[in-house]
Amino acid sequence: MIETPYLLFLGDAPDMLAAKVAIGIRDWRPENALGQFRLPGCGADLGLPDMTLAEAKEAGVRTVVVGVANRGGIISPAWKKVLVMALEEGFDLASGLHNLLRDEPDLRAVAQASGRALHDVRVPEVDYPIANGVKRSGRRCLAVGTDCSVGKMYTAMAMEREMKAAGMKATFRATGQTGILITGDGVPLDAVVADFMAGSVEWLTPDNEPDHWDLIEGQGSLFHVSFSGVTLALIHGGQPDALILCHEPTRAHMRGLPGYSLPTLEALRDMALPLARIANPACEVVGVSVNTQHLAEAEARACLAQVEAEMGLPATDPYRYGAGKLVEALAAL
Amino acid sequence: MIETPYLLFLGDAPDMLAAKVAIGIRDWRPENALGQFRLPGCGADLGLPDMTLAEAKEAGVRTVVVGVANRGGIISPAWKKVLVMALEEGFDLASGLHNLLRDEPDLRAVAQASGRALHDVRVPEVDYPIANGVKRSGRRCLAVGTDCSVGKMYTAMAMEREMKAAGMKATFRATGQTGILITGDGVPLDAVVADFMAGSVEWLTPDNEPDHWDLIEGQGSLFHVSFSGVTLALIHGGQPDALILCHEPTRAHMRGLPGYSLPTLEALRDMALPLARIANPACEVVGVSVNTQHLAEAEARACLAQVEAEMGLPATDPYRYGAGKLVEALAAL
Repeated sequence: MIETPYLLFLGDAPDMLAAKVAIGIRDWRPENALGQFRLPGCGADLGLPDMTLAEAKEAGVRTVVVGVANRGGIISPAWKKVLVMALEEGFDLASGLHNLLRDEPDLRAVAQASGRALHDVRVPEVDYPIANGVKRSGRRCLAVGTDCSVGKMYTAMAMEREMKAAGMKATFRATGQTGILITGDGVPLDAVVADFMAGSVEWLTPDNEPDHWDLIEGQGSLFHVSFSGVTLALIHGGQPDALILCHEPTRAHMRGLPGYSLPTLEALRDMALPLARIANPACEVVGVSVNTQHLAEAEARACLAQVEAEMGLPATDPYRYGAGKLVEALAAL
Repeated sequence: MIETPYLLFLGDAPDMLAAKVAIGIRDWRPENALGQFRLPGCGADLGLPDMTLAEAKEAGVRTVVVGVANRGGIISPAWKKVLVMALEEGFDLASGLHNLLRDEPDLRAVAQASGRALHDVRVPEVDYPIANGVKRSGRRCLAVGTDCSVGKMYTAMAMEREMKAAGMKATFRATGQTGILITGDGVPLDAVVADFMAGSVEWLTPDNEPDHWDLIEGQGSLFHVSFSGVTLALIHGGQPDALILCHEPTRAHMRGLPGYSLPTLEALRDMALPLARIANPACEVVGVSVNTQHLAEAEARACLAQVEAEMGLPATDPYRYGAGKLVEALAAL
């Protein structure tokens, strides 16, 4: 668990694209994002106050988050200097970089000497149990996709926000590095050892109040042969009561797999629901989230109307039109 | 890859049950099992020549295999003495124990000094790729089960033996520790990191001659919520041309999951085949392997006849009646 609030370290990020993680934190947990720290040459700007480490301390920041993708896979000397100073001044560090904070001897030495934590969110920090399949109290919703990267995290985040605004009990449960940095907690599922995948999802979504909803971040796709095992572990470990189908209607083939075409939403429903009912016989598909970013307004509206007619389910693009329809479907379950 | 042939170290195994791995090596790769090494008090006997380390050296043994489950999870001083001597005399060591050879400082020191290898087959030794889903040449058969531990490894082993005897090209591909120790090679799939599961199976079953069959060892079950993700990674990484359904008809509930009943063979077929066809549209279910160990002779015969009638597929118990029917079904594909 990463201590909040954060100072978002943008380093010398060339542009906003490189600051994707920081943007996610600012957008989804603005209360955690007290300020940004930029080095000379930084081309990203989150519109947050620029803070020195001393100002961040004063403001109550607990953790400096590396909210940026770095160049060439190394932590540069310019970054290192700031990160060492941050540890010395009493901040924890958190990062989703491929190259780990803990693999830098100087960072590790300073962290140890100052008693601060280095959170590499790509690496599991918990010994997860093997899943036991026992039915848990509380309710769970999982987003499953026709493909990877079709908007599953965004959908769950948008539903959580909408549900909280409506006074419902809801918790987004992160299963990927961006989600973990945004919320400060979660399971880096793609880095968990095979035998413990489903158990880590059970651990992430424990017993809860009967009217509480976990919104579980989906990963991969049952139809994506590289990562389908991760998806099935989410379905069986999460024992969802509700599935949201996620789709990107303009994609030519499965992400990274030129030989594989995307399944239809019907095919996704017919594959995912029987699998989900092994762990939870009451599971239902309640709605569809369509990522319409590549469609003009009229096309997007037409696409959603067509999906609703064909699937007999509420369909929306939560980024464009809000997650209201999906939340209503959950509330009606 | 573990160098063969082996000397099978039985230590002070109290009985034959504790020597399960060694029995598997003796039964399935007799040419690799040159002898056994027993300590005082050993209650297991494989019927192999008892050899000293010097005799094993003379006979051409390359690796001493710990073919036994140990007590209390520790490598005892009595075992240690022999294992250190084996390294000093030029043997590699291989083990599937939970407690790793490499975690014993004295074994590691001697192995390093003598240039010998410590093979802990529970731990991946390869950096597996992410699966790319590209169609590979050669043919592949995968055993999938209604539950865990219903005889999937035995089925694949028995088919390999029968196919080789019939002059067919066939290779058993191990995905668990026992299979790896038996054959000297394989992927410890339950210990592979989630993102690389399917890729490790692709790595294990590479391009091959058009008429060559990989017999891939199955793991878990699509219906076993603790391990189903591992099973799906096998189905998608293995891109099988043929599935064999494996079943144990007397089991009261899923192994380790009292709240879960076993699926029917029809349900297994209907779940596994559409998933397999994502990676290989030509995949077919070709036969059924029934573990009839808890049925009397007449019951076993009746059970197999009933399965054949209901499924319209050849059914056998390869342990009791041989794998011939399954091999014929493969050959006819």
